[in-house]
Amino acid sequence: MPVASPIISTASGEDALNALTELVRPDLEACNRLIVDRMQSPVALIPQLAAHIVAAGGKRLRPLLTLAAARLCGYRGDRHVALAACVEFIHTATLLHDDVVDESALRRGQASANALFGNKPSVLVGDFLFARAFQVMVEDGDLAVLAILSNAAATIAEGEVLQLVTQNDTATTEEQYLQVIEGKTAALFAAATRIGAVVARRPAAEVEALDAYGRNLGTAFQLTDDALDYSARQEQLGKTVGDDFREGKITLPVLLAFARGSEAERGFWRRTLEAREQGEADLAEAQALMQRHGALRDTVGRAQHYGDAALAALATFPDGPERRALAGIVAFCIARAR
Amino acid sequence: MPVASPIISTASGEDALNALTELVRPDLEACNRLIVDRMQSPVALIPQLAAHIVAAGGKRLRPLLTLAAARLCGYRGDRHVALAACVEFIHTATLLHDDVVDESALRRGQASANALFGNKPSVLVGDFLFARAFQVMVEDGDLAVLAILSNAAATIAEGEVLQLVTQNDTATTEEQYLQVIEGKTAALFAAATRIGAVVARRPAAEVEALDAYGRNLGTAFQLTDDALDYSARQEQLGKTVGDDFREGKITLPVLLAFARGSEAERGFWRRTLEAREQGEADLAEAQALMQRHGALRDTVGRAQHYGDAALAALATFPDGPERRALAGIVAFCIARAR
Repeated sequence: MPVASPIISTASGEDALNALTELVRPDLEACNRLIVDRMQSPVALIPQLAAHIVAAGGKRLRPLLTLAAARLCGYRGDRHVALAACVEFIHTATLLHDDVVDESALRRGQASANALFGNKPSVLVGDFLFARAFQVMVEDGDLAVLAILSNAAATIAEGEVLQLVTQNDTATTEEQYLQVIEGKTAALFAAATRIGAVVARRPAAEVEALDAYGRNLGTAFQLTDDALDYSARQEQLGKTVGDDFREGKITLPVLLAFARGSEAERGFWRRTLEAREQGEADLAEAQALMQRHGALRDTVGRAQHYGDAALAALATFPDGPERRALAGIVAFCIARAR
Repeated sequence: MPVASPIISTASGEDALNALTELVRPDLEACNRLIVDRMQSPVALIPQLAAHIVAAGGKRLRPLLTLAAARLCGYRGDRHVALAACVEFIHTATLLHDDVVDESALRRGQASANALFGNKPSVLVGDFLFARAFQVMVEDGDLAVLAILSNAAATIAEGEVLQLVTQNDTATTEEQYLQVIEGKTAALFAAATRIGAVVARRPAAEVEALDAYGRNLGTAFQLTDDALDYSARQEQLGKTVGDDFREGKITLPVLLAFARGSEAERGFWRRTLEAREQGEADLAEAQALMQRHGALRDTVGRAQHYGDAALAALATFPDGPERRALAGIVAFCIARAR
């Protein structure tokens, strides 16, 4: 049992992501080669469309987590490389399907795959990548890993459906909102890090600790994302502001502003998000209401709370470059909103 | 090595399907219970939407094939029941995604799930069922089965994408068309029957024989379907006629009529299917051209050719009620068009 030591990360934001990337660079490069290699198909449109989203400058955050978690657990083999690619394939598949269902015009600062190729290919190429992820897992041959990622895939779909159900409904509870983001985002983060401990054949306590790290990190990541969608910082990240607002997504900033608002303000939220009658000035008004009620500040504060829980979960592991890099990622996920 | 005996089926059409259903009724009922049980989720919209398509009076053709193939191989356990449910989940997921991409108004004679619930839930519930299939396979715990169905899932997606690529292109070759239907339809039929031999731990020759039976059967099934889409028989089956025509799908009846047509007729096909300029009378004109060139007759003839190959593959197995029932299914698949 390693001695718990305080988790300190001096890095913040992009520095932390760069540090993690540097730490596992050979593994990440092998993973990137494998991603390109395994998204090939005799049907040329598949790699074309997949390349559009895979080559779009993604951070590879989830596969990085798998690679670093395996190294944190002292793993010395190379199974984690293929499994990190599986995690990215599943993530890419959900992005492709999410673009379709959300009609987002932008993804990672570029035209989304469905805007460029149409909805049909996006759905089907997503299906292909999902199937391909399972083919690669089968080649790896570990039922424990297959269980982790098939469970995560089911949970992601449940979270996405629940998000649709709560969409345009200002009576959504914070509990439901948390269920949505734990499903659509945190489940894959948790699976990504959990796999690291599983390939290293570590005891249950470490498997659960890495699961808790990933789950809390993913929750913090999504809370931050939801705050950013109403924040000026967002434009610097090359993403459009107000996507959630236009779609009537009920996120925590909305729930907080709604709960703290006057009856007139609640009327505003009902009109814009439930009835979806939105005018030119409404996004600015929504941002002003959030400012007035500290909704973004408190959403980021909540993200910090989950970030702290992620850091605490790392205490199970001995200090070292991997633990410091993973701790830094907590700062990266939250710093985007500051 | 069983003595090959001639494969004779006196049953035809619905009788054959009923005979197969009766033969494995207890297994099928267990499979149906498992399907309802495993499509549950705390997110109520998931079972609601899934029930719409699962309860829509599907024939359960693919799970029936798995159940009967396992019994044909002398299997006495119950793993085939859960795996038949997996096959149906994957099939249902592809239907849901196919409805989205094809904008079909009708599916099995009822309003399609996406017409009723919208595209978004259909994509996501399809994803859920796909993930759930893999969860059930992981519980079953056989990597050989996971390989079969993950390969099939990837091949299905490739076939569907290739179908999009060839859509609206009258220069599509018969070879490409066959690649499409082998992917989108025959691959899952082949997987469904192959699994029967795998759970029974039969030698490779029988595994391959059942694979060949399923693959040829699936090809015959799809060829028949493509003929039916231009046939008056179709209306008796509660499906709309001319869906493929309206979408500009390039199927064998079109390829045959195009190849055998005059330059003026080719102009008709290019206008209606490539430029997609279609008027009131065009579907009737398409049907007349197919009639003139024997395009439907020859498509069904081709289906019969694949049906014969499916029957020949059954010769590996001893005569008995299972073999007779599976032979009857060949007649069922083709008789629909007569």
